[in-house]
Amino acid sequence: MVEAAATTPDRLPAWQALLRHAEAYKHSHVAALLTAKGQEHRFARFSRRVAGLTLDLSKQRWDDDTLDQLLTLAREAGVPEAIESLLSGQRINQSENRPALHTALRLPAGATLEVEGEDVVGAVQESLSRMETLVKRLHAGQWRGATGKPIRRVVNLGVGGSDLGPQMVTHALADFRPDDIHRLKIHFASTMDGSQLVDYLSRLDPETTLFVLSSKSFTTVDTLSNAGTARDWLISRLTDKGVAPVSAELIIRQHFIGVSARPEKMTAWGIAPAHQLRFWEWVGGRYSLWGTIGLPIALVIGMANFRRLLAGAHAMDDHFARANLEDNAPVMLALAGIWNVNFLDIRAHSILPYDGRLEYFSAYLEQLEMESNGKSVTRHGEAAEYSTCPVLWGQLGPNAQHAFYQLLHQGTQPVACDFIAPLTRYDDVKDAETRRLLQSQHRLTLANCFAQSRLLMLGDEAIDDEAPRPAHKRYRGNQPSTTVLLDRLTPEILGSLIALYEHKVFVQATIWGINPFDQWGVELGKQIAGQTQQILEGDAEPDGMDASTRGLMEAFWAAGGGPAE
Amino acid sequence: MVEAAATTPDRLPAWQALLRHAEAYKHSHVAALLTAKGQEHRFARFSRRVAGLTLDLSKQRWDDDTLDQLLTLAREAGVPEAIESLLSGQRINQSENRPALHTALRLPAGATLEVEGEDVVGAVQESLSRMETLVKRLHAGQWRGATGKPIRRVVNLGVGGSDLGPQMVTHALADFRPDDIHRLKIHFASTMDGSQLVDYLSRLDPETTLFVLSSKSFTTVDTLSNAGTARDWLISRLTDKGVAPVSAELIIRQHFIGVSARPEKMTAWGIAPAHQLRFWEWVGGRYSLWGTIGLPIALVIGMANFRRLLAGAHAMDDHFARANLEDNAPVMLALAGIWNVNFLDIRAHSILPYDGRLEYFSAYLEQLEMESNGKSVTRHGEAAEYSTCPVLWGQLGPNAQHAFYQLLHQGTQPVACDFIAPLTRYDDVKDAETRRLLQSQHRLTLANCFAQSRLLMLGDEAIDDEAPRPAHKRYRGNQPSTTVLLDRLTPEILGSLIALYEHKVFVQATIWGINPFDQWGVELGKQIAGQTQQILEGDAEPDGMDASTRGLMEAFWAAGGGPAE
Repeated sequence: MVEAAATTPDRLPAWQALLRHAEAYKHSHVAALLTAKGQEHRFARFSRRVAGLTLDLSKQRWDDDTLDQLLTLAREAGVPEAIESLLSGQRINQSENRPALHTALRLPAGATLEVEGEDVVGAVQESLSRMETLVKRLHAGQWRGATGKPIRRVVNLGVGGSDLGPQMVTHALADFRPDDIHRLKIHFASTMDGSQLVDYLSRLDPETTLFVLSSKSFTTVDTLSNAGTARDWLISRLTDKGVAPVSAELIIRQHFIGVSARPEKMTAWGIAPAHQLRFWEWVGGRYSLWGTIGLPIALVIGMANFRRLLAGAHAMDDHFARANLEDNAPVMLALAGIWNVNFLDIRAHSILPYDGRLEYFSAYLEQLEMESNGKSVTRHGEAAEYSTCPVLWGQLGPNAQHAFYQLLHQGTQPVACDFIAPLTRYDDVKDAETRRLLQSQHRLTLANCFAQSRLLMLGDEAIDDEAPRPAHKRYRGNQPSTTVLLDRLTPEILGSLIALYEHKVFVQATIWGINPFDQWGVELGKQIAGQTQQILEGDAEPDGMDASTRGLMEAFWAAGGGPAE
Repeated sequence: MVEAAATTPDRLPAWQALLRHAEAYKHSHVAALLTAKGQEHRFARFSRRVAGLTLDLSKQRWDDDTLDQLLTLAREAGVPEAIESLLSGQRINQSENRPALHTALRLPAGATLEVEGEDVVGAVQESLSRMETLVKRLHAGQWRGATGKPIRRVVNLGVGGSDLGPQMVTHALADFRPDDIHRLKIHFASTMDGSQLVDYLSRLDPETTLFVLSSKSFTTVDTLSNAGTARDWLISRLTDKGVAPVSAELIIRQHFIGVSARPEKMTAWGIAPAHQLRFWEWVGGRYSLWGTIGLPIALVIGMANFRRLLAGAHAMDDHFARANLEDNAPVMLALAGIWNVNFLDIRAHSILPYDGRLEYFSAYLEQLEMESNGKSVTRHGEAAEYSTCPVLWGQLGPNAQHAFYQLLHQGTQPVACDFIAPLTRYDDVKDAETRRLLQSQHRLTLANCFAQSRLLMLGDEAIDDEAPRPAHKRYRGNQPSTTVLLDRLTPEILGSLIALYEHKVFVQATIWGINPFDQWGVELGKQIAGQTQQILEGDAEPDGMDASTRGLMEAFWAAGGGPAE
């Protein structure tokens, strides 16, 4: 592989130049940029169209010089070479010594990609075919539970990457359900405390409920403990339900599908080999919705639409591979973020979709960005003496207007925002009057989206006041934002939107010199939780525990906690 | 009213002393505090028990001296006087010239509180009685739609305070549904783009669906546009449904309840006076779940449990009124926040419940905290030259472990965390084996909660390593946290938990010298959105629009947007 720049980015000439350039910007207001002469073409200059998306970066606090220097930084940091390494399957995930090949999951069937002597495309297509077989059986009403009834409910047991992506996409694309299939409802249970699962168990019929056990490592305790409770529920309720006694083996066989990179562990748990879907170590959990982890998506929207989702992501991959840095949407989005975080010291980033179907998009991005780039050690083991990933959070924009926009407009924290909205919507609503009302709601929503980014940027300047405003009604503005417009929300365009952010994260990681594909920061917690559980269970002594944690444990015991005798 | 300190807090002697005190802390590690001699009693020293809650502040990066100085700051900033002003109904919401009397909503029936010559308690109790009447009718199956069928589904149309509180509490207390009532399902539709509403309209039966139109001002465009679409749906589908034609008046009368502080506007919209629930200007939207805005809560858990929720909040109010500053849980929680934000420069705060029933708690707190304290101008019109509200976000803790804990453990941003968990759970599950499995899941969850706060605090020190860790496996620790333990999740204890945070926000506002009860930062956006919508609709010209926003509008028109001719 082409080696990434061996130095930390803050030693690169472009970084130093940007620091000097930023000095002026720290005290200037973005409103001045917009009203300056020659800025009539600012939208054309700072927006890009690709794969059904319009990426507008003209409300960032930057100008031509800034962008030129950021592009220089990208080149000095080896971004073009890194893109090539990513897409060709080099082992860029150094600490785990493997490639990160989520882009291979969306290569078209006819493509070729040989990685270390193996044809990846064939294997991917075969796994999609296997998935399609299961989906079709369920959609045809031909998958029967242990007592012979067709499955009607599917509960996805998974957490993190096995939950956030599938849940976000199924919610976003619920309009794309095929209408000629056996009725099937998909649910998600992720929390280790069993809350969501217990709710389903109280309402669902065990005879017609199937569980998808989704875990890359097949050791995720959250998911396995939910699966254990679900298995017990099925067995205790179905064993005596049939004409003849139903065996536990049959119940597990007919009511569980497994999705994992570890087939031997699925088999050990009891998942029938025919009901196992596999993927590969080279697919990171948070990049896994494109393959078999996407089973719940395919169950909701059908395989044809699932393939459209892949095609949209591939269109973005193709753009990412070929476009010049300056025309490259993920690179441009990444550079705006680098500028905000590292040079304007904006350490918070809000994701604000103006479309209720994107309700789970910010939770999805929270993982994608913070788990990928929440790092402080470079690929070369050096401490990063600069900010990496900002704190990222979000909410549906119109709802957040009634919740935390107060802080965006009048608080003391600088925040960068991403506004996301579809341009057109509701043109397929059948009833004419309902369509008219909903399209008007859509325009209202877009108007709010455009108005808020404008106000965040300009502050008071956005409006002609007749008299001076009192201090508590002032808006300082100067909060930068990006707007991403979707031509409409389709499987293809959602695919390209997600891929846009995936690649943005990769470009930022490249510049920061960190590895976005590992997550060592979640490992130690698992280990310590295991020890802590032993103490809570009474199987180990709380020796060496700090006074604070010991106090919490004593509160637990005092409340009568611990297992029943 | 007793006037708050007339100066900004950064000029108070205690603030200056704390700045000096903090210098040492910026370079010290909390692990050192825990292992220092004499720290065996740290849990006892820094935890408080009140109203079913254990508030543990022993994992904050502070010591006895810090706390003493923070308590001095609270006194210098007039916190005791401010508490008195709040609870006695002084006009502490200066910019809107009114009191903030959410605590009056939860005073017991026998209490007295006279505010400006009027008895508040009587009025509150009467509004609860009116609400109870409606709840009982619906619970008895005696509320019939326009075609004569009993109502089975209730959709709450509201946003911000009319949505987040009710949704959070109904989800948290779903186990407390009375089982002897007519079956009723409660839904929430908040987003202005109609996404959620459209989903319900496609599934629900108009004959048996009731809408609650919840808006303090009754001008909230998000809610009114959803209500308009819902009204059209009902009328178009029900008019010809009855034996005889059903009038629009009857449909609106039987299918809408209004909740607002503006009865004349409810009447103008068409809400029958008998189906109007009222509250008062002196209840802020984000503090309104305790009264008639809580109707969806009462519909889910019944009035008796709703009153338990109020009683729990009142227990916290009572504690807040009487306890010494040092024993006062909301004050202590507030001081930890002030220390983190203003002296340790920790500008992000994560809310991490370890109980799936608290899934919406962080979204609720995002509004409560950021809308209240996302301010930068003091009560006296001076610019705050110090940080106020941090960026607040959260997620169920176990899920966030698989999403953004990577950033908490190994990122470059300092973050303070609140861990929230119930001590006991699942002891009422009937099936013995299911109970055993679920209680084990509960202990697993608590173990994770305790382990994560410990690891965040101690970093690598939390574990005995045999060999040095490579850089990418290091955990620096030193991220402070609070743990709030609930004896169990009951209506009373949830009430006291919410009130704890409400009062924390108030204490912080008092110290920062800002008004937590207004929200001028959301007003201008509404105004500009209205103008923007006129332009999008083609009813106004885009004159004076900046080049960036004009570009977005042109993209909309190019996509065929704008109303049909």
